[in-house]
Amino acid sequence: MERVIDVRNGRNLTMLSDFYELTMGNGYFENGVDETIAYFDMYFRKIPDEGGFAVMAGVDQLIEYLENLTFTKEDIEFLRSKNTFSEGFLSYLENFKFECDVWAVPEGTPVFPNEPLVTVRGPIIQAQFVETMVLLTVNHQTLIATKANRIVRAAAGRDVLEFGSRRAQGYDGAIYGTRAAIVGGATSSSNTLAEIMFNVPAVGTMAHSWVQLFDSEYEAFRKWAEIYPDKCSLLVDTYNVLKSGIPNAIKVFNEYVLPTGNRPKSIRIDSGDITYLTKQSRRMLDEAGFEDVKIIVSNSLDEYIIRDVLAQGAPIDVFGVGERLITARSEPVFGGVYKLVAVERDGKITPKIKVSENQEKITTPHFKKIYRVFSNKSGLAVADLLCEHDEVIDESQPLTIFDPTYTWKRRTFKEYTLRELQERIFEKGVLVYKSPTVLEIRAYSKKEIENLWPEALRLEYPHRYYVDLSQKLWDTRQNLLIEQSQMYAEDKY
Amino acid sequence: MERVIDVRNGRNLTMLSDFYELTMGNGYFENGVDETIAYFDMYFRKIPDEGGFAVMAGVDQLIEYLENLTFTKEDIEFLRSKNTFSEGFLSYLENFKFECDVWAVPEGTPVFPNEPLVTVRGPIIQAQFVETMVLLTVNHQTLIATKANRIVRAAAGRDVLEFGSRRAQGYDGAIYGTRAAIVGGATSSSNTLAEIMFNVPAVGTMAHSWVQLFDSEYEAFRKWAEIYPDKCSLLVDTYNVLKSGIPNAIKVFNEYVLPTGNRPKSIRIDSGDITYLTKQSRRMLDEAGFEDVKIIVSNSLDEYIIRDVLAQGAPIDVFGVGERLITARSEPVFGGVYKLVAVERDGKITPKIKVSENQEKITTPHFKKIYRVFSNKSGLAVADLLCEHDEVIDESQPLTIFDPTYTWKRRTFKEYTLRELQERIFEKGVLVYKSPTVLEIRAYSKKEIENLWPEALRLEYPHRYYVDLSQKLWDTRQNLLIEQSQMYAEDKY
Repeated sequence: MERVIDVRNGRNLTMLSDFYELTMGNGYFENGVDETIAYFDMYFRKIPDEGGFAVMAGVDQLIEYLENLTFTKEDIEFLRSKNTFSEGFLSYLENFKFECDVWAVPEGTPVFPNEPLVTVRGPIIQAQFVETMVLLTVNHQTLIATKANRIVRAAAGRDVLEFGSRRAQGYDGAIYGTRAAIVGGATSSSNTLAEIMFNVPAVGTMAHSWVQLFDSEYEAFRKWAEIYPDKCSLLVDTYNVLKSGIPNAIKVFNEYVLPTGNRPKSIRIDSGDITYLTKQSRRMLDEAGFEDVKIIVSNSLDEYIIRDVLAQGAPIDVFGVGERLITARSEPVFGGVYKLVAVERDGKITPKIKVSENQEKITTPHFKKIYRVFSNKSGLAVADLLCEHDEVIDESQPLTIFDPTYTWKRRTFKEYTLRELQERIFEKGVLVYKSPTVLEIRAYSKKEIENLWPEALRLEYPHRYYVDLSQKLWDTRQNLLIEQSQMYAEDKY
Repeated sequence: MERVIDVRNGRNLTMLSDFYELTMGNGYFENGVDETIAYFDMYFRKIPDEGGFAVMAGVDQLIEYLENLTFTKEDIEFLRSKNTFSEGFLSYLENFKFECDVWAVPEGTPVFPNEPLVTVRGPIIQAQFVETMVLLTVNHQTLIATKANRIVRAAAGRDVLEFGSRRAQGYDGAIYGTRAAIVGGATSSSNTLAEIMFNVPAVGTMAHSWVQLFDSEYEAFRKWAEIYPDKCSLLVDTYNVLKSGIPNAIKVFNEYVLPTGNRPKSIRIDSGDITYLTKQSRRMLDEAGFEDVKIIVSNSLDEYIIRDVLAQGAPIDVFGVGERLITARSEPVFGGVYKLVAVERDGKITPKIKVSENQEKITTPHFKKIYRVFSNKSGLAVADLLCEHDEVIDESQPLTIFDPTYTWKRRTFKEYTLRELQERIFEKGVLVYKSPTVLEIRAYSKKEIENLWPEALRLEYPHRYYVDLSQKLWDTRQNLLIEQSQMYAEDKY
């Protein structure tokens, strides 16, 4: 049975941590480097589904986790039983007080590979320890928000309902997956708890079992209409959509909804050929005078199927999207990583790099900030620029940026505006940020995505958005790379 | 912020329900059919990854959910605010007491499409209401246990460590995903909380950040060995595995581990060409007298990569498997469904069917039981047989089974033993089952999977295992299908 500790209304997920965070913590402590200040960046390397951008999400849950970070007596007892940790370290954990600075890109912001979505600065034991949960939280919600936004874009203005709880990967997969789906633009959800937690309207009508329970589909529809005359929505594919479902729905709409002075709301189709069935259903409904009755479809939908059936002219008003949204089925992993980028001793910041046999695993060192560059003419975002933390850019001067790999590729902006992307979330362990509501985040996200070039919004083969390094940061990285590389140029072993 | 209610040590997830369970519940109540007894089956249609079987998991969490099923005052207030439910129904929920019978296939059992993994019998409001959580719980854990077992089979006796928390889909995706990975055969996990909750050893050593923090890799290794001389395991790919990592590891093993009377444990490689690097590393370690030091690899592994590198002779002792296990990346949805199969009134059970435009979505009606048929000669499972609940099979007589679609395909068993697969979990709402521990489930699962024909164990193109219907059940299904089909044969609308 699950152990739950209710701390300040939240769950204490302190021990949901990779064990190596603790063996390293003990190591830092025993080496006396525990008060060394470390800088970690959380960033990702690749946009899921080869898309044009990801949608940042999960900051509010990250805050909740960090606010509830406490080792209980039972945790300490458990750790002691592992015969791995010193008493000094256990005592440190027992008195643990979160003291880090945290910066994050606000939820809903379109984000790109290799820029720090979250930066944590603090005593290395602490900044290291939170790695697992920073990644778990932001990876999951960013994955789902990104996928939801693809589906919402494919739906081209039609409502997208999140219907996936039953196929989610665990309870939080459903709960925070719903939240992230809303961040990404979904209209509402079937998840009742999501309305309680996030104030996102929960919706739902009937399953096939309702229809099966009664002796006939007609009777099942009639019974429904009698109870819900003002919100009558019928599932029409239990037996046969065109020969039974739609005719029975029309009959019941006429006999039991109209006489109450209401209009029926919708019909839902959950199987069969969507384009064919919706076209025929629309025609039948229209001929019966129900032009205003909406057609909802569900059944393993995703952005590609939605795009296809809309291209065929399927008259669909609302898409109910389940498993392929809530699990981001086409690419169910958001590969965010959390890497040490600098160390501070006596106020001096030393940038750190991780080289790798895999080129794309080399890190961008140093304590950084991200600027989003907007063209004054179009108002659109044209590039992101990573700088060292203390760089100052004079916006009255032209700004030249260049590709960090193909450095001869350059662009110069004359009329531009910079916006710093990260916001301060914690200051020495104290929360200094107030999360917007989920619906506010959705509205912000919509606006921010509209400020991207349309070329970045394509579902397939979008134009690559530029994330460049300042000259100063590029030099720092280059020097560290050369230094590391020279260590092995001469084969000294 | 999340709302958590601590009921009997568990989370009250009552409101993690699709809203339509509630609109239907209100409908049943208002129609006076709320005390009608309904039978629902949870089953799946397709084995993920085109595998030979799935591994049942999630029963213990399902029990926890059902035991904690309670509508709080706040829930009732919330539901009232939706202006959808009658006061009578809200009062029913306020006094809700779970009264259903529940049967389930024990966790760890290999299971196949179209057989009921869970059967719920009870007042239709209740049996309907639990749909979302039955599916969410069993779908998730069965998905991960099934994937884990594929990976464990590919590892061919080598240890598989679950390393995926940071890429899981939400906190429970990590927590119960770890649990399911162990059910499926993983040895242990990096997830500290999983040890506290499930008594599964948490393991872990160092990240690249440990190595980066110090002025040199050698110093980082030395500092580690000094603290952990009895469990020295080093990550050797921060800079260059063969030119730096392994030589530094050997040096530190000799200088700081051996003198303490200990043997070093292992080295880990997390990037680069696994086969090449492990072969070279093994040679270097062996030449230095460290034949007993294990080689652990990680880096986006799955069953296919593991099979490939082992086929190439990569000398790997332990696989750390992360994102592709914890999300079942290759097929991240387990498509379990929950369907009404019968209705009982005045003690008479009436089977119910759902026809569909999609052939595979047609249900198998009636209250059923599953027999697993074992050959007495080989001891192996040869088929599963679905019967009506009250059928009796005389094991002294030959048993003929036939394919439910291609009915001329027949097999007759003479020397066989039957075992009923489902066990009773709840009896009229009272828990009558004691869950084994996760480690007991893993042991049971291993044995059960060894009782399958080897042909079912192949990762790709396994032989199909037979799930047949008894003649009686087949007749029931056929008659209902014909009845439904005739309803639409004449176009009466």
